[in-house]
Amino acid sequence: MPRTLPLLLAGLVTLASAQAADKPTRIPEAALTTAAELRERALADDTAWEFTEGLTTEVGERLAGGENDAKAREWVIAKFKALGFDKVWSEPVTFPKWVRRGEHAQMTAPFAQKLAVLALGHSPGTPAGGITAEVVAFDSLDALKAANADAVRGRIVYVGPRMHARKDGGDYGMGSNVRTKGPSLASQKGAAAFLLRSAGTDNNRLPHTGVTTFENGVTPIPAAALSSPDADLIERVLKRGKPVTIMLALDCGIEGNYTGANVIAELRGRSKPNEYFIMGGHLDSWDPGTGAIDDAAGIAIGVGAAHLIAQLPQRPQRSIRVVAFANEEAGLYGGKAYGAAHAKDIKSAVLGSESDGGADRIWKITASVKPSARDAIAQIAEAIKPLGVEYDATAPGHAGSDLSAVHAVGMAGLSLHQDMTRYFDWHHTANDTLDKIDPEQLRQNVAVYAVVAYLAAQAEGDFGSKPGAFAEDGHE
Amino acid sequence: MPRTLPLLLAGLVTLASAQAADKPTRIPEAALTTAAELRERALADDTAWEFTEGLTTEVGERLAGGENDAKAREWVIAKFKALGFDKVWSEPVTFPKWVRRGEHAQMTAPFAQKLAVLALGHSPGTPAGGITAEVVAFDSLDALKAANADAVRGRIVYVGPRMHARKDGGDYGMGSNVRTKGPSLASQKGAAAFLLRSAGTDNNRLPHTGVTTFENGVTPIPAAALSSPDADLIERVLKRGKPVTIMLALDCGIEGNYTGANVIAELRGRSKPNEYFIMGGHLDSWDPGTGAIDDAAGIAIGVGAAHLIAQLPQRPQRSIRVVAFANEEAGLYGGKAYGAAHAKDIKSAVLGSESDGGADRIWKITASVKPSARDAIAQIAEAIKPLGVEYDATAPGHAGSDLSAVHAVGMAGLSLHQDMTRYFDWHHTANDTLDKIDPEQLRQNVAVYAVVAYLAAQAEGDFGSKPGAFAEDGHE
Repeated sequence: MPRTLPLLLAGLVTLASAQAADKPTRIPEAALTTAAELRERALADDTAWEFTEGLTTEVGERLAGGENDAKAREWVIAKFKALGFDKVWSEPVTFPKWVRRGEHAQMTAPFAQKLAVLALGHSPGTPAGGITAEVVAFDSLDALKAANADAVRGRIVYVGPRMHARKDGGDYGMGSNVRTKGPSLASQKGAAAFLLRSAGTDNNRLPHTGVTTFENGVTPIPAAALSSPDADLIERVLKRGKPVTIMLALDCGIEGNYTGANVIAELRGRSKPNEYFIMGGHLDSWDPGTGAIDDAAGIAIGVGAAHLIAQLPQRPQRSIRVVAFANEEAGLYGGKAYGAAHAKDIKSAVLGSESDGGADRIWKITASVKPSARDAIAQIAEAIKPLGVEYDATAPGHAGSDLSAVHAVGMAGLSLHQDMTRYFDWHHTANDTLDKIDPEQLRQNVAVYAVVAYLAAQAEGDFGSKPGAFAEDGHE
Repeated sequence: MPRTLPLLLAGLVTLASAQAADKPTRIPEAALTTAAELRERALADDTAWEFTEGLTTEVGERLAGGENDAKAREWVIAKFKALGFDKVWSEPVTFPKWVRRGEHAQMTAPFAQKLAVLALGHSPGTPAGGITAEVVAFDSLDALKAANADAVRGRIVYVGPRMHARKDGGDYGMGSNVRTKGPSLASQKGAAAFLLRSAGTDNNRLPHTGVTTFENGVTPIPAAALSSPDADLIERVLKRGKPVTIMLALDCGIEGNYTGANVIAELRGRSKPNEYFIMGGHLDSWDPGTGAIDDAAGIAIGVGAAHLIAQLPQRPQRSIRVVAFANEEAGLYGGKAYGAAHAKDIKSAVLGSESDGGADRIWKITASVKPSARDAIAQIAEAIKPLGVEYDATAPGHAGSDLSAVHAVGMAGLSLHQDMTRYFDWHHTANDTLDKIDPEQLRQNVAVYAVVAYLAAQAEGDFGSKPGAFAEDGHE
């Protein structure tokens, strides 16, 4: 009941808006009946599980631009074709190729101890013998920002805030900020290298990698993540008040450009084939794990949903696309390429939602659509309510990682929020393996996506996709 | 109440036994009053936590015979002295020195994937380029035993049963059996190398190391543990029915002998200084972690308990010893050396209990004592009941890892069973770090040991220690 008032206000805003004259988008009754059937069938279908099992078993890690990049695309193309999509194609994506050859680190003073580290994506390497320097520690990015360069110059900067597990994954904003912005900031103050407490919620001795970025004109410095127990160790030693020295050796770096591809599969719509609902995930993963939750599951959920729809007696009115995006991890390259390639025709992408939050149950739907499509979203939300999904009509729907870049060029977006309580225990670590996925939870995701994709494809009226739409959304 | 009948039967056995004429051992009332005070003080004392924090922070991993072996002994000797024990000394322990320089493995066919492995203690190394061979898999040690040598010869044997988490750690018997006996068995059938699913209950990408043994006359073969997710991967690929090939490269082996030491601290008894209660843990650890739960905590619990007793207005009647045993991990070398050195005078060791099950709450006490000391054990059990410890009068008490070797030469033993539900998630992995210990649980352990040690030292009468006693116990 706490949502009654906002819903009422949202209604008033709709009535008052310039677009109130739009004919409201609506989902036909027959579509809702079919969607209910799809929902039940999804809960007994293991296409998504088999896809995830196959990709993690037969390909494994899929570092963007690495030796498994092409192998993974070939695997996915073959799988898309085997599953009977009407059309399968690739669209090129070019990005800097970052290579990891290895890393190691140790505390050398006042006590000698090995440290579990992983270089961050886009980090340069150290000289072969590593960098040995005294540590200067900060408990937040703001504390580093406020630091005097004299305290930082020539040192290894360590930033150590701790993420806490939350259903909405909320702490990752802070954690990933330290990772993406910390090294650039440290470099500007003359630091020799950068270490962070892994952006994760676990206490395993497995660091969380992830990309970092260096602003234009800033000298890239070696940057790596410590596992949480190793970060604890550094902090305990620092509390003793003695200088702490660390040796950090990273063998990694950017080696020119690489051209990979977004791989796209389509079920061809019956009456409006050029309009489509778009879902999927990213095909690349970080290299320590096998990219099961991040993000084989995301593509698998789209595949599972589309495969169920493909088994209906006839194709839906609109087309349905499943995309395996290239190189999300190092900066949404696949999503940005898709956005750039399809920006002029973004109206065709009637609605989209990428899955990139693991495979735990979807618990919430939010949407960024035109006001006159709000009722249709409420109809969709009602159809997935039996799956335990609540509708928050007050928050935007950025459409998920890569598709947020497509949303940014005007595609209407849904966010289907997965329970992320445990996601950041495993995210970007060697622990991202198939065993972290519960087949039952995965089926719930497929059920949600099958319903949503089908209803979007059958909707009478659109959701507001057009160039420049949703600019007020505050894109991630 | 389910224990009424066994207790009654135990009473009858006592009456009927040859030792029934013994004057029953009993705990004086005054001692029970002091013990209750110790119990409460222990719940507010962090000596054990500080010991564990210090050893894991300032020394870290303590592979027996490795470079931290001597460093750890120096650290412990200094700490024992600083804590005001009356006497601190070392007794030499000699054992084969096993060295780990590194390891790596990958599945090479039908799919190329890296595998997370750790060499087992006492494993020989492989040739520098590793061993590449086809895998033959068994789901139990019995299945391997039953196998025809033709199916095994020249192959890499994989044995893959899964341990399940249990409060009593019960599955470790099976898991450690695969690890200790599997390689020898595989070698006898001509295997090239041996892999097991880690003897652990977690699904982290961190293998569990641990010692293996080769029977006399059996050629040692390289042996390593796969993390559970990697074992899953191998099993998934095997299910596809294609030959699986693995490359295993281990750089490790035994390099002569090393002489370390058991480090012993004593509170000198007031009236019977030559009789003592003995507790403690082992100072060595496996090298991937820092040996927090296995077994810095064990020594720390003894230290914390003894330190509280040392603060009483006067020393107890008997002495109290805390031992930091050498090289438990590779075969109870410290315990066996202690047993050999003190066998003739084992009567002096009136009762003993080593802590080597982590630092979660003690939930059960069992004892192997002479029948006329059963009532005194019941009094001790009553004194620790407020800490949530139940008394199982029907099961023996082997006194814990190293002290089981002392129990084997005739020392009366107690087992103070820790809750091991999570212990085998971390045991023998890089995850054995300080953060896995809950200070409150650790204090409960100290409270139990403080009460038990004090009451044993104050008991009127002994517990049956003498050469050859408890031979019927079925020593572990």
